[in-house]
Amino acid sequence: MRSHRRRDEHAPRAEQKQATRQALLDAALRLVADKSFDSVSLREVTREVGIVPTAFYRHFESMDELGLVLVDETFRTARRLVRAAREGPLPAEQRIRRSAEALVHYVQAHRPYFQFLVRERFGGVAVIRSAIRHEIRLFESELATDLARAPELSAINTADLQILAGLLVTAMTAITEQVLELPPRGEGLDDVIVLAEKQLRLILLGASIWQSR
Amino acid sequence: MRSHRRRDEHAPRAEQKQATRQALLDAALRLVADKSFDSVSLREVTREVGIVPTAFYRHFESMDELGLVLVDETFRTARRLVRAAREGPLPAEQRIRRSAEALVHYVQAHRPYFQFLVRERFGGVAVIRSAIRHEIRLFESELATDLARAPELSAINTADLQILAGLLVTAMTAITEQVLELPPRGEGLDDVIVLAEKQLRLILLGASIWQSR
Repeated sequence: MRSHRRRDEHAPRAEQKQATRQALLDAALRLVADKSFDSVSLREVTREVGIVPTAFYRHFESMDELGLVLVDETFRTARRLVRAAREGPLPAEQRIRRSAEALVHYVQAHRPYFQFLVRERFGGVAVIRSAIRHEIRLFESELATDLARAPELSAINTADLQILAGLLVTAMTAITEQVLELPPRGEGLDDVIVLAEKQLRLILLGASIWQSR
Repeated sequence: MRSHRRRDEHAPRAEQKQATRQALLDAALRLVADKSFDSVSLREVTREVGIVPTAFYRHFESMDELGLVLVDETFRTARRLVRAAREGPLPAEQRIRRSAEALVHYVQAHRPYFQFLVRERFGGVAVIRSAIRHEIRLFESELATDLARAPELSAINTADLQILAGLLVTAMTAITEQVLELPPRGEGLDDVIVLAEKQLRLILLGASIWQSR
């Protein structure tokens, strides 16, 4: 819950509304830790927060809309990480290691969000599935644009760069999944970092000698 | 539904039981096309088949057990494909192409099964999740053993071969997911084959110059 004060006369009420909205999002995230989103009911979420079911509609039109907000929040924070990690051209040894560390620690620090993403990417709610896929595709395109600037990859044409970006994102997704499979306290995190570093390095090694035809 | 006749006196009854069991599995697969397994009820499955709910227990102990049978069936058929594809050492150009084609066409021909796997790998039922992960890990180990025989990969130590196998399986999983994202009739299948071939080729290219330390 956020607590920034404004001079607005209505501030307390607006703040309270914002707090309830955030509490609904948090409750939904807690509930989807154990089951899939389409088996969580609006009633369960409001019960968790301690409000009557009809009050839900002051904040969201539907459970689907709440789900879409969760997708949006997860990618917004993830994008910040990625921007920081991809300053500059093709990662050198050191940079790959640091990217792997950043990814693994970030996922670990935001487990409930990534748990939700990973599960609902193939979950039972079509509108949430397609929002997640859209964000992933966007992410791949941005990465391909960055890779296009690397002189080491000049032998790779645009179509193949998209494929390379797709493979890197696939590997990152699998690494995310592996972090989530670890016990919540994060024992074994270092092994996943080593794995992540080697997999990214292997892909970029292949890319460094790839010749597009 | 299978229809093989035996000379057994009880054959018709045994056959009928087998047919109902298969109908329950098929019904569950149809239902999970649109939603997640933990939101499908036993009652819905029996209604689809046209039997009373209590009759379910003549075939399965619980919905979880039915789910585990689906996991088992999917991997049993998938393993046949993989055995056929990996006859011999490291795939050469031609062989990578053929493996990519085989994978894509196989997934397309068994969409409901793979849809179930992909969704429930991160779904809400712990026992099904862990069965799927166990099978995937087994699959990776078998692949690593095969790769160990390839003279082209002799510079890679055992630990790194496991990582390489993991990355190949990750790529194959992502390709499976892409096939499932296509419209059911399979428009766009050829594009996924090209993508699959290039991604597998890129990984194996990296592996061919990888030096374990």
